[in-house]
Amino acid sequence: MATQRILDFLATRRPEGPCLVVDLDIVENNFHAFRKALPDSAIFYAVKANPAPEVLRLLASLGSNFDCASVAEIEMALEAGATARRISYGNTIKKERDIERAAALGVSLFAVDCVEEVEKVARAAPGARVFCRVLTNGEGAEWPLSRKFGCVPAMAIDVLVEAARLGLVATGISFHVGSQQTDTNAWDAAIGDAKFVFEALAEKGIVLTLVNMGGGFPTRYLKDVPAAEAYGRAIFESLRRHFGNRLPETIIEPGRGMVGDAGVIKAEVVLVSRKSATDENRWVYLDIGKFGGLAETMDEAIRYPIVTARDGDLMEPCVLAGPTCDSADVLYEKKPYPLPITLTIGDEVLIEGTGAYTTTYASVAFNGFEPLRAYVI
Amino acid sequence: MATQRILDFLATRRPEGPCLVVDLDIVENNFHAFRKALPDSAIFYAVKANPAPEVLRLLASLGSNFDCASVAEIEMALEAGATARRISYGNTIKKERDIERAAALGVSLFAVDCVEEVEKVARAAPGARVFCRVLTNGEGAEWPLSRKFGCVPAMAIDVLVEAARLGLVATGISFHVGSQQTDTNAWDAAIGDAKFVFEALAEKGIVLTLVNMGGGFPTRYLKDVPAAEAYGRAIFESLRRHFGNRLPETIIEPGRGMVGDAGVIKAEVVLVSRKSATDENRWVYLDIGKFGGLAETMDEAIRYPIVTARDGDLMEPCVLAGPTCDSADVLYEKKPYPLPITLTIGDEVLIEGTGAYTTTYASVAFNGFEPLRAYVI
Repeated sequence: MATQRILDFLATRRPEGPCLVVDLDIVENNFHAFRKALPDSAIFYAVKANPAPEVLRLLASLGSNFDCASVAEIEMALEAGATARRISYGNTIKKERDIERAAALGVSLFAVDCVEEVEKVARAAPGARVFCRVLTNGEGAEWPLSRKFGCVPAMAIDVLVEAARLGLVATGISFHVGSQQTDTNAWDAAIGDAKFVFEALAEKGIVLTLVNMGGGFPTRYLKDVPAAEAYGRAIFESLRRHFGNRLPETIIEPGRGMVGDAGVIKAEVVLVSRKSATDENRWVYLDIGKFGGLAETMDEAIRYPIVTARDGDLMEPCVLAGPTCDSADVLYEKKPYPLPITLTIGDEVLIEGTGAYTTTYASVAFNGFEPLRAYVI
Repeated sequence: MATQRILDFLATRRPEGPCLVVDLDIVENNFHAFRKALPDSAIFYAVKANPAPEVLRLLASLGSNFDCASVAEIEMALEAGATARRISYGNTIKKERDIERAAALGVSLFAVDCVEEVEKVARAAPGARVFCRVLTNGEGAEWPLSRKFGCVPAMAIDVLVEAARLGLVATGISFHVGSQQTDTNAWDAAIGDAKFVFEALAEKGIVLTLVNMGGGFPTRYLKDVPAAEAYGRAIFESLRRHFGNRLPETIIEPGRGMVGDAGVIKAEVVLVSRKSATDENRWVYLDIGKFGGLAETMDEAIRYPIVTARDGDLMEPCVLAGPTCDSADVLYEKKPYPLPITLTIGDEVLIEGTGAYTTTYASVAFNGFEPLRAYVI
């Protein structure tokens, strides 16, 4: 929801063009909610969700750790005040020279999901700690989870054995249950897989200590989602069930769940029209679309709440589209979006829950439109 | 195909990281081919395909006109040496204040597809020329064409009548047969629709003069495509058939067809791995993906030719993915891509036919990766 601070900012500053406004108070609340929900887990904020310096500085000051996808993100986290010990290079796809750069910056925790990546880390960051990502099925997640990251648990055993053999510290297992995961039990099967790998390695004399439980914590879009406490409870119970009294260290990597509901995009209605006299749906065109920051509407995956000043009026399903000359730049068409029948050209709309995966997804200059501006307040 | 000039540039300069190299000689050849194929049509280059200043300057010097999607693109075309008379504001979705800005820059030709847009143009650019876009079905096009732009021909009549009533010059009809259109006859039905609207308006005393036949001209990816001459012949015959001896002025708006085959992306293999010991396909990860400039691999729509130094070796279908921590950043998976079985980490690959719709589609900084760099030679 748009907070009063965001509404006041927009009313006072009246920025021209589409923009994102992020309320740091919400980010801080979310951080505390995660800490309370999973008090024994270290929080590694997924920088890719929103790398605004103000967000990173706030989280660094609150004691957050950082999950980074690239050397540039590592540098941003350091710049924001994190120490290298608080940074994980969580991308399983790294150039060897980037591993070397990260190691030179002091980073010593790396994600891997195959022997080939282990070999790179062993050469470029000798003695570093590595965790191996295992595949999960992503059921219950709204953003599609592919098989891109991770290997099957049986292969994770070989990967970590090889890591140990090459002088790395085989630290543990990671997984990701899929972004915008609304099933609090989604973590359970993967925690079971982690335990399986822990036992298999223990038999080989390698003691794992870490379970990186990834992200996936949802933000509220149109439907209610379980609160952080519900996830905390389900995850803790699952850890207890699988690991008994010998609980491993754990990490969580919230991104969307940390910043999603802290941001609101202000946009403008550029055109409202029909394609024929008998057209069933009106077309509503905004000054932001798939290439301007709303990439997560791809396949209509994420459905953002949209607020207008006319929401008391009669609603009618509309096709919603962006402003570029690209026919793929349509946000919601298969499932049209209900908007007030009185909505008109020039109206302002607020697109809520847009604090994550918007600014950096925006294209450089597609159709000459500048990237999404952001104000962090 | 990578030209010798591009290969020499890469061999000499050895740029670090993924980059696009565009050979201006090819752009010039393409311009001449279009001019020869459709000698009576004015060429309006679709700036959005690749707005590199060098490309725009070359085309301006060759006498090209420019189809612009935004005020920023209009400014780029002017900067490159085009006069305002040679610019069309071809986006049917415009803010009124942007129409005003364009008019202030001297632009006097605007696209519309509804009465609402006509009203904006009448207020913000009194007396301007407008053409109305009509819907086509996009059959035969490889990049999805939605119903986003245009109205049915019957509605186009009302739109242009209203334009005339509001003091605008109702100039003609435009349409787009869909990007990467491989059927040379795809223009025919739309030219017939244009003729229908011409006649209907003539009965009302409004004489249309222009048919804007849009873009859609393909570039060669993996499959051969008809040459510009074949399109020229089919289009000219269709114009003759529908308009007889009273041929209208015509415009074409090539974008992909002008620059697509002039560009090659140099990328690097970051990782080659399998997900399990029995995995059927290897996964090949590049340092460029869907968010770094290859957005047109969305739904595996555009299938680029990929060249490696090992192409003589045995080939095997691979899943091809990008370098970001986003599970949606997979290029080809439903239909795996054949690559040499010897392809290995650190190898360079050339992704051909990438001169259009790559650089400006690239995200600002997703996962901390910088946008695609481009060299125009």
